[in-house]
Amino acid sequence: MAAIIQIRQKEKFMGTMKHGVDLLEEITKICQERSIHLGSIEAIGAVQKASIAFYNQTKRDYVIMTINEPLEMTSLTGNISIKDGNPFVHAHVTLADSTGNVYGGHLAPGTIVFACEFIIKTFDGLMLERRFDEDTGLSLWSLQE
Amino acid sequence: MAAIIQIRQKEKFMGTMKHGVDLLEEITKICQERSIHLGSIEAIGAVQKASIAFYNQTKRDYVIMTINEPLEMTSLTGNISIKDGNPFVHAHVTLADSTGNVYGGHLAPGTIVFACEFIIKTFDGLMLERRFDEDTGLSLWSLQE
Amino acid sequence: MAAIIQIRQKEKFMGTMKHGVDLLEEITKICQERSIHLGSIEAIGAVQKASIAFYNQTKRDYVIMTINEPLEMTSLTGNISIKDGNPFVHAHVTLADSTGNVYGGHLAPGTIVFACEFIIKTFDGLMLERRFDEDTGLSLWSLQE
Repeated sequence: MAAIIQIRQKEKFMGTMKHGVDLLEEITKICQERSIHLGSIEAIGAVQKASIAFYNQTKRDYVIMTINEPLEMTSLTGNISIKDGNPFVHAHVTLADSTGNVYGGHLAPGTIVFACEFIIKTFDGLMLERRFDEDTGLSLWSLQE
Repeated sequence: MAAIIQIRQKEKFMGTMKHGVDLLEEITKICQERSIHLGSIEAIGAVQKASIAFYNQTKRDYVIMTINEPLEMTSLTGNISIKDGNPFVHAHVTLADSTGNVYGGHLAPGTIVFACEFIIKTFDGLMLERRFDEDTGLSLWSLQE
Repeated sequence: MAAIIQIRQKEKFMGTMKHGVDLLEEITKICQERSIHLGSIEAIGAVQKASIAFYNQTKRDYVIMTINEPLEMTSLTGNISIKDGNPFVHAHVTLADSTGNVYGGHLAPGTIVFACEFIIKTFDGLMLERRFDEDTGLSLWSLQE
């Protein structure tokens, strides 16, 4: 499954999240409240603890890892598209501990914000909808006609 | 403290820095010279040595770490807003050593550029000004009325 | 050698790559097919194996490292400019293994896509052309008059 669409600039938002919220839930909530169907997000900040996932490409399931300590969020890169008819956030993060060592993976629920500064960009374009992909076992984009 | 503002595209700059400059000072200088009050920066490159910080969320102070060796700059993600009336750069970096091992944190002065390729985007919008935040001990954005 | 140019928004593309392609070759191919001379790329996803490089700043050559295992692609940040008259992609990646440990470096050929979601932005502006730079031994941007 492969798809490339041309997108056009729509709206842009810049902001900060409340201390203590769940990072993935909060991004999702912002996208749902503003009806963002296509977009990107970038963020930096810090988290009180993190929950990240690794996709086992052979077993075709996510392994969730919890890091129970404060971490710098060195990067968050994500996109917003549609899954099951709703705005869906797919984001990956890198996180640094007190020694500078970096962990990373797929952002999972359970990552708690200490402080977060983000930029969300929204796009117009054909709808990118996530559907089951045979090659990977993941929900990937197919073009919605 | 939380704030989300809508921003609009203004100017965009793409460039490279001179070998040997201080990375954070150089970004700040570019922003000050061009009066950039609201924006974002992304960069890749390499550094001769790095100085990164971890914010101790309990003690509420930054711990600075120095890495005295050449590193690839695998990501730099940052934003530009206002602090004490001047353009202020907040950036996080990830850096890889000769074995591919990655370090990361808050970009501090003392990170010396070997080569750096960056894109700075500037925005129009309400002013985001950094002020002391009780919840975190950090200077976070509040809306400037 | 240093150069800063003002760039203007041109086109934007969002898409996914086919399972099994070479990540760097595929980005390069997309840029060549669409005659992208100036741009940026960001991506997240996963790879089946990776090949990343570290530039030895003293010996002035790249050391290639191969990681023969599935990895999450936690960030890909890159730019597109001109080298030897053709679109040239310069990208850095961070990659997380099954334990959350992160590797990173300069994206080299041999990194095989498991799944990849990307955004490519193209710009109008003066041509940024890579030429040999005495200070670093790298091909860096000089302004093409």
